[in-house]
Amino acid sequence: MTGADGEPVPTVLDLPIGLSAAGTRQETDSMGTVDVPADRYWGAQTQRSLIHFSIGDDRMPKAVYHAYGHVKKAAAIVNGRAGRLPGWMADLIERVSDEVISGALDENFPLYVWQTGSGTQSNMNTNEVIGNRAVQLTGGRLGSKTPVHPNDHVNMGQSSNDTFPTAMHIAAVKEVHEHLLPAVQALHRSIEAKAERWQDVVKIGRTHLEDAVPLTVGQEWSGYAHQLKQAMAVATASTQGLFELAAGGTAVGTGLNAPEGFAEEIAHEIAEATGYPFVTAPNKFAAQGGLDAMVNASAGLRALAVPLMKIANDIRWLASGPRCGLGELVLPANEPGSSIMPGKVNPTQCEAMVMVCIQVLSEDSAIAFAGSQGNFELNAMRPVIINNFLHAATILADACQKLREYCVEGAELHGEQITGYVDRSLMLVTALSPEIGYDKASAIAHKADDEGTTLREAAVASGYVSAAEFDRIVDPAAMVGPSGRP
Amino acid sequence: MTGADGEPVPTVLDLPIGLSAAGTRQETDSMGTVDVPADRYWGAQTQRSLIHFSIGDDRMPKAVYHAYGHVKKAAAIVNGRAGRLPGWMADLIERVSDEVISGALDENFPLYVWQTGSGTQSNMNTNEVIGNRAVQLTGGRLGSKTPVHPNDHVNMGQSSNDTFPTAMHIAAVKEVHEHLLPAVQALHRSIEAKAERWQDVVKIGRTHLEDAVPLTVGQEWSGYAHQLKQAMAVATASTQGLFELAAGGTAVGTGLNAPEGFAEEIAHEIAEATGYPFVTAPNKFAAQGGLDAMVNASAGLRALAVPLMKIANDIRWLASGPRCGLGELVLPANEPGSSIMPGKVNPTQCEAMVMVCIQVLSEDSAIAFAGSQGNFELNAMRPVIINNFLHAATILADACQKLREYCVEGAELHGEQITGYVDRSLMLVTALSPEIGYDKASAIAHKADDEGTTLREAAVASGYVSAAEFDRIVDPAAMVGPSGRP
Amino acid sequence: MTGADGEPVPTVLDLPIGLSAAGTRQETDSMGTVDVPADRYWGAQTQRSLIHFSIGDDRMPKAVYHAYGHVKKAAAIVNGRAGRLPGWMADLIERVSDEVISGALDENFPLYVWQTGSGTQSNMNTNEVIGNRAVQLTGGRLGSKTPVHPNDHVNMGQSSNDTFPTAMHIAAVKEVHEHLLPAVQALHRSIEAKAERWQDVVKIGRTHLEDAVPLTVGQEWSGYAHQLKQAMAVATASTQGLFELAAGGTAVGTGLNAPEGFAEEIAHEIAEATGYPFVTAPNKFAAQGGLDAMVNASAGLRALAVPLMKIANDIRWLASGPRCGLGELVLPANEPGSSIMPGKVNPTQCEAMVMVCIQVLSEDSAIAFAGSQGNFELNAMRPVIINNFLHAATILADACQKLREYCVEGAELHGEQITGYVDRSLMLVTALSPEIGYDKASAIAHKADDEGTTLREAAVASGYVSAAEFDRIVDPAAMVGPSGRP
Amino acid sequence: MTGADGEPVPTVLDLPIGLSAAGTRQETDSMGTVDVPADRYWGAQTQRSLIHFSIGDDRMPKAVYHAYGHVKKAAAIVNGRAGRLPGWMADLIERVSDEVISGALDENFPLYVWQTGSGTQSNMNTNEVIGNRAVQLTGGRLGSKTPVHPNDHVNMGQSSNDTFPTAMHIAAVKEVHEHLLPAVQALHRSIEAKAERWQDVVKIGRTHLEDAVPLTVGQEWSGYAHQLKQAMAVATASTQGLFELAAGGTAVGTGLNAPEGFAEEIAHEIAEATGYPFVTAPNKFAAQGGLDAMVNASAGLRALAVPLMKIANDIRWLASGPRCGLGELVLPANEPGSSIMPGKVNPTQCEAMVMVCIQVLSEDSAIAFAGSQGNFELNAMRPVIINNFLHAATILADACQKLREYCVEGAELHGEQITGYVDRSLMLVTALSPEIGYDKASAIAHKADDEGTTLREAAVASGYVSAAEFDRIVDPAAMVGPSGRP
Repeated sequence: MTGADGEPVPTVLDLPIGLSAAGTRQETDSMGTVDVPADRYWGAQTQRSLIHFSIGDDRMPKAVYHAYGHVKKAAAIVNGRAGRLPGWMADLIERVSDEVISGALDENFPLYVWQTGSGTQSNMNTNEVIGNRAVQLTGGRLGSKTPVHPNDHVNMGQSSNDTFPTAMHIAAVKEVHEHLLPAVQALHRSIEAKAERWQDVVKIGRTHLEDAVPLTVGQEWSGYAHQLKQAMAVATASTQGLFELAAGGTAVGTGLNAPEGFAEEIAHEIAEATGYPFVTAPNKFAAQGGLDAMVNASAGLRALAVPLMKIANDIRWLASGPRCGLGELVLPANEPGSSIMPGKVNPTQCEAMVMVCIQVLSEDSAIAFAGSQGNFELNAMRPVIINNFLHAATILADACQKLREYCVEGAELHGEQITGYVDRSLMLVTALSPEIGYDKASAIAHKADDEGTTLREAAVASGYVSAAEFDRIVDPAAMVGPSGRP
Repeated sequence: MTGADGEPVPTVLDLPIGLSAAGTRQETDSMGTVDVPADRYWGAQTQRSLIHFSIGDDRMPKAVYHAYGHVKKAAAIVNGRAGRLPGWMADLIERVSDEVISGALDENFPLYVWQTGSGTQSNMNTNEVIGNRAVQLTGGRLGSKTPVHPNDHVNMGQSSNDTFPTAMHIAAVKEVHEHLLPAVQALHRSIEAKAERWQDVVKIGRTHLEDAVPLTVGQEWSGYAHQLKQAMAVATASTQGLFELAAGGTAVGTGLNAPEGFAEEIAHEIAEATGYPFVTAPNKFAAQGGLDAMVNASAGLRALAVPLMKIANDIRWLASGPRCGLGELVLPANEPGSSIMPGKVNPTQCEAMVMVCIQVLSEDSAIAFAGSQGNFELNAMRPVIINNFLHAATILADACQKLREYCVEGAELHGEQITGYVDRSLMLVTALSPEIGYDKASAIAHKADDEGTTLREAAVASGYVSAAEFDRIVDPAAMVGPSGRP
Repeated sequence: MTGADGEPVPTVLDLPIGLSAAGTRQETDSMGTVDVPADRYWGAQTQRSLIHFSIGDDRMPKAVYHAYGHVKKAAAIVNGRAGRLPGWMADLIERVSDEVISGALDENFPLYVWQTGSGTQSNMNTNEVIGNRAVQLTGGRLGSKTPVHPNDHVNMGQSSNDTFPTAMHIAAVKEVHEHLLPAVQALHRSIEAKAERWQDVVKIGRTHLEDAVPLTVGQEWSGYAHQLKQAMAVATASTQGLFELAAGGTAVGTGLNAPEGFAEEIAHEIAEATGYPFVTAPNKFAAQGGLDAMVNASAGLRALAVPLMKIANDIRWLASGPRCGLGELVLPANEPGSSIMPGKVNPTQCEAMVMVCIQVLSEDSAIAFAGSQGNFELNAMRPVIINNFLHAATILADACQKLREYCVEGAELHGEQITGYVDRSLMLVTALSPEIGYDKASAIAHKADDEGTTLREAAVASGYVSAAEFDRIVDPAAMVGPSGRP
Repeated sequence: MTGADGEPVPTVLDLPIGLSAAGTRQETDSMGTVDVPADRYWGAQTQRSLIHFSIGDDRMPKAVYHAYGHVKKAAAIVNGRAGRLPGWMADLIERVSDEVISGALDENFPLYVWQTGSGTQSNMNTNEVIGNRAVQLTGGRLGSKTPVHPNDHVNMGQSSNDTFPTAMHIAAVKEVHEHLLPAVQALHRSIEAKAERWQDVVKIGRTHLEDAVPLTVGQEWSGYAHQLKQAMAVATASTQGLFELAAGGTAVGTGLNAPEGFAEEIAHEIAEATGYPFVTAPNKFAAQGGLDAMVNASAGLRALAVPLMKIANDIRWLASGPRCGLGELVLPANEPGSSIMPGKVNPTQCEAMVMVCIQVLSEDSAIAFAGSQGNFELNAMRPVIINNFLHAATILADACQKLREYCVEGAELHGEQITGYVDRSLMLVTALSPEIGYDKASAIAHKADDEGTTLREAAVASGYVSAAEFDRIVDPAAMVGPSGRP
C-alpha cells in the first residue's frame, strides 16, 4: 500500500507494549553504536546519558515525560496535517504519544535529573522510545530508525530548547491544578468548617506569645482559612505565565526548521488535548533564554507554604500539653508518640507539614537561583528547576491531604482550658482604656499582675472604676466584635 | 474659645518645625519617667527603644514613618468626623501628620529595625512625635500629653498590630510603584530601543555557551526586553494583596476599641490621600496573624531580579575582551578598571547589578522565612520584613537606573567580531538537517571541526550537497526567521 | 536450657532472612491492633506511619537504618554486658543488628521522610524489625514480641530522642568520609595532574571577564586544585561535631532509664564497630534540643559546592565555542548535544555539576532553617535535616566522580587559541607600568585599543619606550612569575 | 635635603587632618579630569564611582578602609625597606595609613557597596586619600600626585585584586574576634550563671511541645550555654582560612610587578601590626579566583545564629503568658508592650534576636551564592560578600549584647508555675516503664489522661503498682539524673 505521496505505507500492528528480548541490542546515534537493554525501547542517546549521569538516585519526574507526550503528539498532528509527515506516520506517532501520556511506557524513561541542562537527553529519550515503539508497531527492527526516525520524524520541527520548557510548563500546570490546589482546597474547607463550628467559643488572643484580648476560636480559624484562600488565589495566578509555550522557537528562538505557524498550531493542539488555555509564547528568546514563568510559578508554591507553616505551628502550639502546655486543642492520637515515654501523643502531622514547608521554601530558593543562571539563548538549569518544582508541589499537596485527614478533621477543643484562660487574663483591661485612658488602665493591669489578683479586683481597688462599671465594660463576649465573626 | 462639646479649643500657633531647647527634658509613659533630648519631639517609649535596641546601624526606613503619617491622618479624619475627637484636634493631628508624610520631621524617627516584632515602638514614636508637635502648636508643654495624648488621641481606635502592617503596605506600594517600576520601565525602553536599532544585525546564537544557529542582535535584546516586561507585570500583580489594609482590626483582629465602620473608613481615607485603591482587609485575623501579602509582593521583586541578573550577565559576557573574550559588545568606559593594569575597562555596572540581584534574592528569602514565623494573632517579624522589602526595592530601582544610564544607553556593537563569528560557525549546518537528515548533517559538522575547515568546504567534500545547494540552503540571514524579528 | 538467671534460653535457629507468608498478620502496639503485610518484619507502629505519612515518595534514607543498626547493636552489647539483657538476647539483637547494618533487611524500612520530627517512627521501625526477626530466629510467633520486645529489649535504655540523632551522626560521618571525600579527592588529583601537565602553557588571564595579564594554564588549574584541597579540609573539620553522640540522654537529655555509664559505653562500642572516634556528647540537652553539629557539617558540604560551581563554570566557559567562544579547552564529546543542531557538543558534565551545586546550596539552607526551629528539649526537624544532608552529600560525590571521569580527565588544550590570545592582548602593558608609570602605560593601552594595533606598535609609537625596551620588558613568559608555578 | 638616592626629600609638615577649601578642585586620572569637593581628599576615580554607583544608601563599611590602611601601611614598610620607595615616602605613607586605620579620615571614604565587583574603586579611594593627604603634608598641591602618586607609590606592588580580599580578611577577623565573639562570650557567661543558679529547680521537660519527663531548669540552660560554647568554637575555627592573605598575587595571582618575597613580607607586617597570625596564602590563584575563606567564615556566623534563634525562641515561649501561656519565666519589663493594651509586656529582646538571626541566615546565603559566582582569575562579587559579612557579624554581636543585658540578666523563674507543671504531668510514667514494661505504663498514662486523674491515682487503680511502689519509683527529683546537672 502506498500513501498520497507514493511512498509505501506500512501496516500498523496491534502489539501490546513490551519487548520480550533478553540481553542487549545495538543502537546508534551520530557518535556511533551503543548496547542497550533489549527489553527497553530507548536508544543510544538515552543509554549514553545513563552511563554518564548516574548521579544520586534522582530521576527526571515521570510527569515530565507524560507532558512531553503531549508535545510529541501535538507536533505529529500539526506536521501530519501540513503534509510534512505522511498521514500514517503522524497517526502512529500520535498513538504512541498517547501511550507515553498514559504512563504505560514509564519504565522506559530512566534518566537522571542531573543531566544536560537543556533536558536534551530526556527529549531524546522520548524521541527514541516513541521511535522504537513506532518501529515495533510497523514490524520493523528496533534501532533501525526505519520507518520512524527519532530526530527526523518524532522531533520534527522541534528542538529540546523549545520543547523541554514546553513540557515543563505542561507538567507544572497539571501538578498544580490537578493535585496541589484540590488538596489545599479540601484542607481549606475543613478549616473553614472548624471556624464555623467554633464561631461562638470565646478564647484569649495571643500576640508576641503573650496574653492579649479575646477573640473567638472561629475567628482565629477563619484567619487560617482566609490565609489559605488568598494563597490559593496567588498560586493560581502564579501559574498564568506557564500557559505560554516556547514550542516553535526551536534551537535559539528564531523558529529555524519549524514552518510558519507551527508555534501557534502546536500550542493550540496542546490546549485542546489538555484543556488548559495554552498559547504560544509571544517572545521565544525570552521563553528559552529564561525560565521566568517557572520561577514565578514557584512563588505560588511558596505563597502556600508560608501560611501553612504558620497554621501548622499554631495548631501544634494550641495542642501543646496535655497538662503543661497551652492545651486548648486536642488532636487525634494516630500513633504512639515515644519509644520511651509511654502514652505520649505528639503533633506529628504538624511537624511533617512544617518540615515540608521548610523543604518547599528551600526548593523555591533553588529554583530562583537556577532561574538567574541562564546565558544567551538558553537557561541550562532546566532539570533542577522542574524537579524541584514538581517535588515541592507534590509534597505540599500530600502534606495538606494528610494534615486535613489525620489532624484537622479530628481536632477538638478543650473547652475548660479555653474558658479558664479568658477568666484569668489581664488584658481584658484594654476595654477600659477608651473609658479611663490608657495610663490608668495600664496601672490596673500592672497592679493585678504584681499582686496576683484578678483584673476585676485590681480595677475596683484602684478606684478608677466601680465594680458595676467594670462588669458592664469588661465583657469578653462583647469584646470579640458585633458578631464574633470575621 | 470652646468647641461644640463645650470643651475649650486651643489656639493653634503657626510655629515652624524645630525645638531650640538644649539638654534633656522629662517624658513619661506607663512605666515611669525618661530623659529625652530636648531638641527632639519623641517621648519616653521612643527613648526606651533607643536604649534597648541599638543593634547595628539599621534604622527603620523613613518611608515607614511617611506611610504611618497617612495612617494617623486618616484615623484623625475618621475620628473627627464621627465626633470621637474634637474637630480642632482632628485638624491638628491631620496637619502634623502631613508634616510627617512630607519628611519634615524625619530626624525625629531614630529607631532601629531590630526592635519589637510588632513595630509598636515605631508606632509609639509616631504617636509621640505627632503628639508633642501638636502640643507645641497649641502652646502646651512638651511631654505633658496635654491637650493631645499619644495613645488616647493620636492612636485612637488603633493598635500597632493593625496599623503597622497598614503602614508597611502603604510604604511598599509607594516604593514599588513610584520608584522601582518607573526605573525598570526606563531600562526596558532603553533595551527595547537597542533591540529595534540592532534588529537586522545577524549574530551567532549560543546555547550551553556553545555555538548555535544565528539570530539577530535585535532578537536577542527583544528577549531581554520581553523578560523585563513580563517581570514588571508580575511585580505589579504581586502588589495586589498590599491594597488590603489591616487597620481597624486593632489588637487581635476583632476591632476592639475601634467603632463600627472604622476599618472601611480609614482605608477609604488612605486611598483618597495616596491615590491607590486601598480597601480594608476582608479578614483581619489573616492580615495580622500573617504577612502573606508582603511575602507575595516580595516575590514580585524577585521576579525582576532573576531576569535582571541574566541580562546583566549576558551583557558582561558579550562585552568580554576586548581581544580575548566574546567581544561582540563595547560598553562605555566610565572609569579606569584597574589599579595595576593600565587601560583596563570593566563591566562594572553589570557587576553591581549582579550583586544587587543576589542581595535581592537573599532578602526575599529572609522575608519568606520571617513570613512563616507568625504565631496566633500576630506575626512578630514585621520590621525584618519591611526593612528587607524596602531595601531590596530601592537598590533594584537604583541599579536599573545606573545600568541604563551608564551601560545600556552607551553600548555599541563590534560589528566585525559579530560577523566573523557567523562566518566561522559550524552550527549553520542545522539548516541542512531537514534536507539531508540529522545524521548526515551531523557528520558534516564533525568533519569540519576535525579538519579545521569551513562548514561549506566540509559539506561539499562530504558529497551530501553541492556547493550551489549549500549556498542556497545555508543563508544566515534567512535562518533568523522571516523578518529577523521576535 | 536456662541462662545464668535461671530464665529459659531459646534455641536460635539458622534461618535466612525472609518471610514466606502471604496476606497480612496482626501486630499490636499501645494503641491497639494493626494489619501489616505478612511478608515484612515491621510491626504496628511502622504500619501506622505508612498510613499516616505517605507524603510524596521521599523515603527515609537507608543509610539511616544502617546507622541505627550500629546503635541497636551497641546498646545490646552494653546491656548484655551489664546483665540487663540475658546474654543470648544481647547476642541475638547484635546478630540481627548486623543484618540491618549490612543492608540485608532494607526492604523492611519503608517509612517516609515526612513523619514525626523526632524520627520516632523510624526508630520503632528498627525496633520492630529487629524484634520480629529475633522472634523468628527463636521460633516465636511474629507480632508476639516474645521473647524479644521492640521497646523493652531492642530499645532498652534508649529513646528516639537520643538515638535518632546518634544514627544521623553515624550516617552522615560515613557518607562524608566513605563516599564524598574520596570522590572529591579523586577529582582533586585529576585536576592537579592537569595543573602539572599544563604548567608551562602561558595563557591570558581574565578578571571581570576582561583581558588581564598572563598566567600559565597550570597556575589556573593549581588554583582549582587548591580550592578543592582547602574545601576538603573544611569539610573534614566540619564533621568534627558529628563525633559527639546523644545516645544515653534518653527522653530529654537527663538519661532517665539509662544506667550510669551507658552513654559512654554505647559511644565506645559504636566507635569500635565503625572505626570513627565517636564519643558521648558532653551535654545531652544541647545534643537533643539542637542539631547544631548537623548544621555545621552541612556547611562543609557547602564549602565544597561553592568552589565546585566556580570550577565547573570556568571549565565550560573555557571550553565555549568551538569557534565563537573562548575555545581554550576541548572537552570530551560524550553524547550528541542537540536534537536539532547536528554535531553539537555541550559541556553537560559541567552543567550537571552546576545544578548539583545549586541543589546542595539550597539543601544546606533547608538544614540551617530547620536547625533553628527546635523547641525546648527537642529539635523536631530531624528527618528534613538528615534527608537533605545525605542527599546533598551523595549527589555532590557522584557529580564529582562523573565530572572527573567524563570531563576533566579527557580535557585537552587548544594551544593555538591560547597563544593567539596572549599575542593579541593589550594588558601586557602592565609590565611597563613600573618602568614608565601607570598613567603613560594606560595611554599606550588605550591608543592600541582605539587604533586596533598591537600593543608593541602603540608603545613604540608613543615614544615612551623603544622597541628594544618593549621586547625586554614585555615578555609574557616572564610575566607569569619565576617558575610559572603557584 | 636629599635622600640616599640623591632625590630631594620634602619636609613633612605637621598639619591636622582637614581641608578648608570650598567649592571644587580638579583631579585627574587616566581618563581625564573630574571636579571633586575641595574639602575632601579623594581624587578622580572616587568621584567617578560616586557618580556612577549611587545605588541605595549602602556604603562600603568603614571597617574595610581601616583594614585597607593596614595593607597600605604594610606595603609601604616593605617597599621602603627594600628601597623601592624612598625612606621618607615610605614613612609618610605609613603615617597617613595610621590615620586611615584610626578612622580619622573616615569621611573621605564615601563609596557605595554596589560598585565594581573587585573593590577597585575602594582601593583607589584609599590610594587617592592617602596620596592627597601625603601631598598635603609635604606642602604640595592636591591632585598633583606629586610627590606621592596614588598608583605608583601608594599602590606599589599591589592590585585591587589581591589587596581588596586582603582587606576583607583583616576586617572580618577583627569584627569577629573583637566584637562578635566577646559579645557571645558575655552572653554565654550570663546563661551559664543562670544554669548554675537554677540547677536544682526541677521542671517538666517538653518534646514535640508536649509534656515529657522532668529535668532541672539548670540542665535546660546548660544546654543553651553548651550550644553557644560549641558555636563559638565553630565560629573561631571558621575564621582560620581568613588568616591567609592574597596580597602579593597582584593582578591575577602571579605576583606580576611585585618583587620576590613581597607576599610573605606584607603578610608578616600585617600580622605584626594587628596581632593576628596572618600569613601569605599558599596559592594566590585560589585566593583571588575564589572567596572561599569568606564563605566558610560566614558559616561560622550561621553556626551562632542557629542556636541563638532556638534559645531566643525558647525564652520567649517559656516567658509566654503571664496567665495564658507557659509562664515559667519572667522577663524584665523594659518598655510598654502595646499601644492599645495597657500593661502588656512582650519578649521584645527575643523577637529582635530572632529577626537578627533570620537576617544573618539570609545574608549568609547571599555570601554563599556570591562565592559561587567567580570567573577565572577573579571573583567579582567582593563588595556584596564583605558587606553582608560585616553587617551580619555586627548585628549578631549587638543583639547578643542587648539580649544579655536587657533580657537574660534580669530573667527570673516563676517557681509556683514550674512546680505545678511537674505535679500535673503524666509523663513521669516513664519511670515505671523499666519496672512494669512499656505497654502497661502506656495504659496507665492513657487512663489518667482519659479520666482526668493524677498519674498516681491511675497507676494505683491499674493494679500494676502499689501506691508505695509508685512513690518510690516516680520521684521527679530523682528522674533528672544523679546530680541534676549536665
